[in-house]
Amino acid sequence: MAVDAKSVKELRRISGAGMMDCKKALTDAEGNVDEALKLLREKGIKVASKRAHRQASDGLVYAYIHSPGKLGVLVEVNCETDFVARTDEFVEFCKLTAMQIAASDPLYVSREEVPQEVLADEKNILQKQLDGSGKPDNIVEKIVTGRLDKFYSEICLLDQEWIHDSSAGTVNDVLLALIARIGEKTVINRFARFSIGS
Amino acid sequence: MAVDAKSVKELRRISGAGMMDCKKALTDAEGNVDEALKLLREKGIKVASKRAHRQASDGLVYAYIHSPGKLGVLVEVNCETDFVARTDEFVEFCKLTAMQIAASDPLYVSREEVPQEVLADEKNILQKQLDGSGKPDNIVEKIVTGRLDKFYSEICLLDQEWIHDSSAGTVNDVLLALIARIGEKTVINRFARFSIGS
Repeated sequence: MAVDAKSVKELRRISGAGMMDCKKALTDAEGNVDEALKLLREKGIKVASKRAHRQASDGLVYAYIHSPGKLGVLVEVNCETDFVARTDEFVEFCKLTAMQIAASDPLYVSREEVPQEVLADEKNILQKQLDGSGKPDNIVEKIVTGRLDKFYSEICLLDQEWIHDSSAGTVNDVLLALIARIGEKTVINRFARFSIGS
Repeated sequence: MAVDAKSVKELRRISGAGMMDCKKALTDAEGNVDEALKLLREKGIKVASKRAHRQASDGLVYAYIHSPGKLGVLVEVNCETDFVARTDEFVEFCKLTAMQIAASDPLYVSREEVPQEVLADEKNILQKQLDGSGKPDNIVEKIVTGRLDKFYSEICLLDQEWIHDSSAGTVNDVLLALIARIGEKTVINRFARFSIGS
């Protein structure tokens, strides 16, 4: 059916959606503006969830070889679009992250990747170091938590201090700042670090 | 203790070792040339076994990024000395191998790395495909072996055809030819292959 131009205008004003989307929604809703708005919202939610699903499926694979070729890093950083992946800022982040991995030798990207056994072993060691210290349990717990944070900051890339600028905080802080600037979900997906003789 | 210059001279002549090593061995052997020679030999054996252990402990980490950065490969190729690792021929082999990995997407370097479960699964599938074919067991076995070779040539780098020159045979053939020319043990140790969206 043909839709009323006034309704389209109103729907556009309320929904902020484009002309074609509003026309289609009004057609589907048989001219009812409230129904059409609902349809647009549902579609919007679908778009958002589709977007959430698609999030960070583009990106860049970046390689850094530390001269003279005895140490190399390959890192995959994902973002949402090729457009962002090609920007100088994104490429620079990938490069600096690869150099960070080369210098700081993390074992995992994030805390979530640390295997349970590794974590349990570390907790055990920390606990044993504090056994018989005579400190109350709640203090021991705090100390263990603090030392675990330190442990994570050694083995997890995102928890490491950003080596290129100590005032920038952790790698994760720098990543969050990048996301805020470029406006796309960005994820350090994986890395490999090969060193001759290791 | 100070050591006798004549003993040092004699020890150098017998052992062929350097002045400082002979002096040290004589000191440790309290001036006894036979004992000192034994010490030098022991040390020599240690050096040799250390070398055997060190074999292919140098090499190169090489990166290949397939333009425009959606696919990347990092490969570690080991040889015995930095001297060889820096030669054009070695670097070229690393580069072509990295490109091979990018193009042919192997999962393992060699057959030995294929997990037993993966192999058992594949054998099962092949066996089932031939069940009820009416072929004698020895023929079935031959067919399975042939198909397993094909399977390996798809997933194992060393079994893959060298993509840069089909007359060169497999990657392993090209590696063996390289070893024959450069005269050093050479090993493709490991690789990583990252592809955006995989």
